[in-house]
Amino acid sequence: MHRTPAYAAATAGAPLAPFSIERRAPRAHEVLIDILYCGVCHSDIHQARDEWGGSIFPMVPGHEIVGRVAEVGAHVTGYKVGDAVGVGCFVDSCRQCEPCRAGEEQYCDQGMTGTYNSRERDTQAPTYGGYSTRITVDEQYVLRIPEALPLDRAAPLLCAGITTYSPLRHFGAKAGSEVAVVGLGGLGHMAVKLARAMGARVTVLSSSESKRADALALGAHEFAATRDAATFKQLARRFDLILDTVSAEHDYNAYLGLLRLDGTMVLLGIPERPAPVSAYALIGKRRRLAGSLIGGIRETQEMLDFCAAHGIASDIEVITIDRINEAYERMLRADVRYRFVIDIASLRD
Amino acid sequence: MHRTPAYAAATAGAPLAPFSIERRAPRAHEVLIDILYCGVCHSDIHQARDEWGGSIFPMVPGHEIVGRVAEVGAHVTGYKVGDAVGVGCFVDSCRQCEPCRAGEEQYCDQGMTGTYNSRERDTQAPTYGGYSTRITVDEQYVLRIPEALPLDRAAPLLCAGITTYSPLRHFGAKAGSEVAVVGLGGLGHMAVKLARAMGARVTVLSSSESKRADALALGAHEFAATRDAATFKQLARRFDLILDTVSAEHDYNAYLGLLRLDGTMVLLGIPERPAPVSAYALIGKRRRLAGSLIGGIRETQEMLDFCAAHGIASDIEVITIDRINEAYERMLRADVRYRFVIDIASLRD
Repeated sequence: MHRTPAYAAATAGAPLAPFSIERRAPRAHEVLIDILYCGVCHSDIHQARDEWGGSIFPMVPGHEIVGRVAEVGAHVTGYKVGDAVGVGCFVDSCRQCEPCRAGEEQYCDQGMTGTYNSRERDTQAPTYGGYSTRITVDEQYVLRIPEALPLDRAAPLLCAGITTYSPLRHFGAKAGSEVAVVGLGGLGHMAVKLARAMGARVTVLSSSESKRADALALGAHEFAATRDAATFKQLARRFDLILDTVSAEHDYNAYLGLLRLDGTMVLLGIPERPAPVSAYALIGKRRRLAGSLIGGIRETQEMLDFCAAHGIASDIEVITIDRINEAYERMLRADVRYRFVIDIASLRD
Repeated sequence: MHRTPAYAAATAGAPLAPFSIERRAPRAHEVLIDILYCGVCHSDIHQARDEWGGSIFPMVPGHEIVGRVAEVGAHVTGYKVGDAVGVGCFVDSCRQCEPCRAGEEQYCDQGMTGTYNSRERDTQAPTYGGYSTRITVDEQYVLRIPEALPLDRAAPLLCAGITTYSPLRHFGAKAGSEVAVVGLGGLGHMAVKLARAMGARVTVLSSSESKRADALALGAHEFAATRDAATFKQLARRFDLILDTVSAEHDYNAYLGLLRLDGTMVLLGIPERPAPVSAYALIGKRRRLAGSLIGGIRETQEMLDFCAAHGIASDIEVITIDRINEAYERMLRADVRYRFVIDIASLRD
């Protein structure tokens, strides 16, 4: 066992503070990873504050993990000591069900094992995430970080990157597609970069006019302010695909009206309450309202390789671990462009 | 011009009563049809009572029309006098927009011209439907009724048939698919027959336990009562495709839970108010909530040919035109198995 420094929330809503956890020596198919960077996802806040219910405390958040392999188990074949690797939102799944066998482990019928705030499938011990200096993970749930990617800016790809890449691919974004991205935050800024690299024509829809310049700089062809009612007339029936990254409550029907025949709007955020959907808005143009959850291991690797090939990484602000509580407050004010990444060296001293 | 007996609602909600309209002699590309049968669709009631707003009175309803060609225009190439033909929900569209050019005239960007309760594109004269002895229609919007189909039982295929056939095809029902049909009325009973003929495994979900025997007789493999909460546990994650034919308000999220990974629920009915949809229900299994509107001309012909090949037609109760108001009342009590069809001979005497 390795005694491992970490940061944890002791109870729901408690500030994160230094904590110590044990990481096991790698079993036959596992690798021990020295964590270098960990991105800070909005869901870290939701779970640390138990806003979704069922949180397990003390909680060590963090599921945008990048590091280097420090030890390998006896039967590990894919990685060797020193390799740059990543861990995303889950570290295990049942491996038997149809989704698992299809490489869509995130939709495991028995439920994936979250990287943190979850329980190991065998021992039921709580899982701890990347706000720590080490993690032990089965190599099947580990990603390879391509050399071309800077390690700090790669971290958010493990959640924000794959959460937007997967629906773009699955719902057919391609050269010439008209793609809209609703909300320009951690997810939205990745969606813009990825959709642009896939050859789509990208429009950012945001309530903040102040994000116009950023949207265009990130690669969007167009920006439209959603506080302006005219936007919904001007862009009516424009888009093949809308990625909706907003988890605040908003009127889905207004956005559905922006889809052309057979267009799809994909929800990536989960508002607190179910939102009214008009059957008419769907029927009138055979539109689809869908949801998408991160992505499977194989597709996450594909996304990392795609990012390396296209020179894409996340726009980040690197922080030391002692600034994590302040970072949470800033994220709640949307005051980050576009992802905080913890330099885990600050936890290792 | 042909003076033509009809039945019309004089004002919103007025009982239907004898009325007289003019049908034009066919222009170069038009055919004049002697109507033999006209199905009675629930939307006839909605529109005759102006429940969707914007109704045009006096109104001659009816968009499930079967008859024989009586005259042809000079340049008609597809039909000759005596041919058995059908007319469905629309008689024209812009013919220029992307949906029209794709053969999806029902999604015309300028709006299709409804068979009734609409206006001619050139003269703005109101259109009148099939509760009448004749209709003049451009041959491009006319369907051929295959010889194998009984003309009376073919009439409801022009709306109820295509409205269920199109989403089954578009959303991929095929041999081995698990398909659920919610609601066993005019649409639902056609959905069961068509899905079964496509090789799917069909389950009927209905609030009326009394429909169990009928569901199985129509070809369903299974029946489940939706008043029984256990149904939603037993059938969780079962279906690839759900056709929801219910226009009364109901909980979409409960049905979404019955979809497997990547499953689609297609709304065919329009409840009075938008209904709450849980993002979580969609995201958790990458599910899709979609809508579908009748079908295009090419696909309607394909459906008729499919029905002829598989010996499928609607289950009907033939009525004389003077019983139409009583039929409406019975439809509102769901007291019809499964479609009223008016014998238009009763209007011709």
